[in-house]
Amino acid sequence: MITMIEHGTVCSPKGFEAAGIVAGLKKSGNPDMALIYSETGAIASGAFTSNRFCAAPVIYDRQVLAKKGLISAIIVNSGNANACTGEEGYANTERMAELVAQKLHCKAHHVLVSSTGRIGVPMPMDVIENGIELACRSKSVIGGFKAAEAIMTTDTYAKHCAVTFEIDGKIVTIGGMAKGAGMIAPRLIGPKCSATMLCYLTTDAKVTQEVLDEALQESLDLSFNRITVDGDTSTNDTFVALANGLASIDIIQAGTPEATLFKKAFVTVAGYLARQLILDGEGVSKFVELRVKGAPSKQDARRVAESIANSPLCKTAWFGADPNWGRILCAAGYSGVEFDPYKVNLDYEGIPIVRNGRDAGVPEEEQAEALRKREFGIDLDLGAGDGEFTIWTCDLTYEYVKINADYHT
Amino acid sequence: MITMIEHGTVCSPKGFEAAGIVAGLKKSGNPDMALIYSETGAIASGAFTSNRFCAAPVIYDRQVLAKKGLISAIIVNSGNANACTGEEGYANTERMAELVAQKLHCKAHHVLVSSTGRIGVPMPMDVIENGIELACRSKSVIGGFKAAEAIMTTDTYAKHCAVTFEIDGKIVTIGGMAKGAGMIAPRLIGPKCSATMLCYLTTDAKVTQEVLDEALQESLDLSFNRITVDGDTSTNDTFVALANGLASIDIIQAGTPEATLFKKAFVTVAGYLARQLILDGEGVSKFVELRVKGAPSKQDARRVAESIANSPLCKTAWFGADPNWGRILCAAGYSGVEFDPYKVNLDYEGIPIVRNGRDAGVPEEEQAEALRKREFGIDLDLGAGDGEFTIWTCDLTYEYVKINADYHT
Repeated sequence: MITMIEHGTVCSPKGFEAAGIVAGLKKSGNPDMALIYSETGAIASGAFTSNRFCAAPVIYDRQVLAKKGLISAIIVNSGNANACTGEEGYANTERMAELVAQKLHCKAHHVLVSSTGRIGVPMPMDVIENGIELACRSKSVIGGFKAAEAIMTTDTYAKHCAVTFEIDGKIVTIGGMAKGAGMIAPRLIGPKCSATMLCYLTTDAKVTQEVLDEALQESLDLSFNRITVDGDTSTNDTFVALANGLASIDIIQAGTPEATLFKKAFVTVAGYLARQLILDGEGVSKFVELRVKGAPSKQDARRVAESIANSPLCKTAWFGADPNWGRILCAAGYSGVEFDPYKVNLDYEGIPIVRNGRDAGVPEEEQAEALRKREFGIDLDLGAGDGEFTIWTCDLTYEYVKINADYHT
Repeated sequence: MITMIEHGTVCSPKGFEAAGIVAGLKKSGNPDMALIYSETGAIASGAFTSNRFCAAPVIYDRQVLAKKGLISAIIVNSGNANACTGEEGYANTERMAELVAQKLHCKAHHVLVSSTGRIGVPMPMDVIENGIELACRSKSVIGGFKAAEAIMTTDTYAKHCAVTFEIDGKIVTIGGMAKGAGMIAPRLIGPKCSATMLCYLTTDAKVTQEVLDEALQESLDLSFNRITVDGDTSTNDTFVALANGLASIDIIQAGTPEATLFKKAFVTVAGYLARQLILDGEGVSKFVELRVKGAPSKQDARRVAESIANSPLCKTAWFGADPNWGRILCAAGYSGVEFDPYKVNLDYEGIPIVRNGRDAGVPEEEQAEALRKREFGIDLDLGAGDGEFTIWTCDLTYEYVKINADYHT
């Protein structure tokens, strides 16, 4: 049994400390630097953006993780993405890792670095340096809440949780935190794998690298790779999991029931956080679960789902609770996927809307009623195969335009 | 020399008549049915949406044009797209052609049909029947303005023009009209080849089918296939050209200087109308000409251009005159096209913004100044090849959200 603790944090698993402080990168004066720390080095697995313009810390973290060494700390700053900043940007990321290593008495290659914020602005290293000093000094076992706060950009609330489960009567915990809001359409490429969506999972489970990699990889399609706010895949998307092995259990090996349980718990945390990213997406007033099935392949189902979820016309119709289903079919139709229009069925919240490509005859007011909910489900069956994909998305509102036309100023 | 007549219409070329009338399909009571007519049968060429859910009139017109017969009339209704309406929808399109043929004393296969408006609503054939009767009775050589008005949906003004040029001292004229506004991202597939964008060109040029097909095909990449308002490719996009041969010239053969001149004039009309579609796009406050070059191929240049032009973050930044160039590079980076981020250059209105993937150092206020213009140009050089593509697009505004959240109600 997996128990969800919504007020859980990255500090819920044994041995993890965290901090969230004000370094001074944001004009607002809000917290802008977070630290996650485990004195006991942790095995790690990560997935990063597939954007060609990936940020300096993404390049750096990929290299560190490729060495398969133990990780002691993750330093994260908001307020500056350190993307499109050239060689200087990369050197600054290395310097951030070194500064953390010095303060925490570990090696630089035991430190991961993440950044989120504006693209193309040189990192103010004096501010960073003071911030790192303060973050390392402030870390504590109750720092998880502040850490989740400090990674926020346009997020309106901090996202964190934890789950516990038992193996042989021993408690194992997985904690996590994430930020999202805009530029959210992750296409993460996992251990063998993008928004600025940042997510960190911590666990005291004792697992093999293989099991941790599997957990992270398998969780992607059920969490961050199934969400889209605006279709913009960021330069900085990062999803990292740390496992320090401090739970008093035997090591979890691949292919065992324990591995299955661990992966299920892992997906629970990742899925919860991914869902929060949509609920708190920029200007979001509606949460939409769009389930596409009957596509020629899973890949095709995903293409159709993304085409609909990123269509401005579908998203504005959802904002207006307009049952205009033609826009959904239209977006499926230009996705490039092959299917027979006369075999397509569409449901809103279980109400038949389209049958065989035509209006199913349900009164419009009844259709609209389903779309007035804060959260609703849409089922689209293409009748062309066994491919399925579910995406979590949202509406497009005045507030989204406001936030993003005014973000900079 | 090609002379543009902005107040020209589809009736500017010899032998063409037109009408625009109120059939009663729109709640607003605005004109909603247009007719273009040439007593002298015209050769025709057409390009239609690549959407899988193409509307009944699109299917019908493709079949008619495949027969390569002469065309006498085009009947167009706004207020109902006749898309996702099944076999009944197709039968209604056939019936529309038959009704026009009866009134105009020609055969149904000499009549093309277009529809634009809401998807999935059965066509009210009684309204249509009366409308066709009135349209056929109202046609005249001064009906071009009213026809351009009658095909509008959320357009705020009618779009039409004409050009003239001379061959052997004889005047040849090409006229045109178009509508657009929303669901504009045509991917038209021309003679050997999608919004609802509708466009009709008429000409009295005497040309071979080959030359007319070439003119239409070659104009696509320089007109309707280079525009995007919202990335939503409609079920009804239609671009049809009619040439009735009434100009007193020798027939224009392929590969001749006259064919080149004709195609240039043709592109002038198509390009002018395509540009108007963006300028009058839903909620548009900025016209953006985005020129991508240095891509591995033209196809790649187009993918990058579309990725940027359809990015909500880029479009909202343009609305806010926010020089946040990181969003443009980010959108290029997730397009899937291969290039070296350190070789990328970006200019706003000729001002260097990014050099070698990094900030070029121009003060932000100067950058923002360029984006405060009603129309501006952006140049992106990927430094990865010879592929080029230019796209015309626009910003994403509160007004777009308003129009599309409220469209139905």
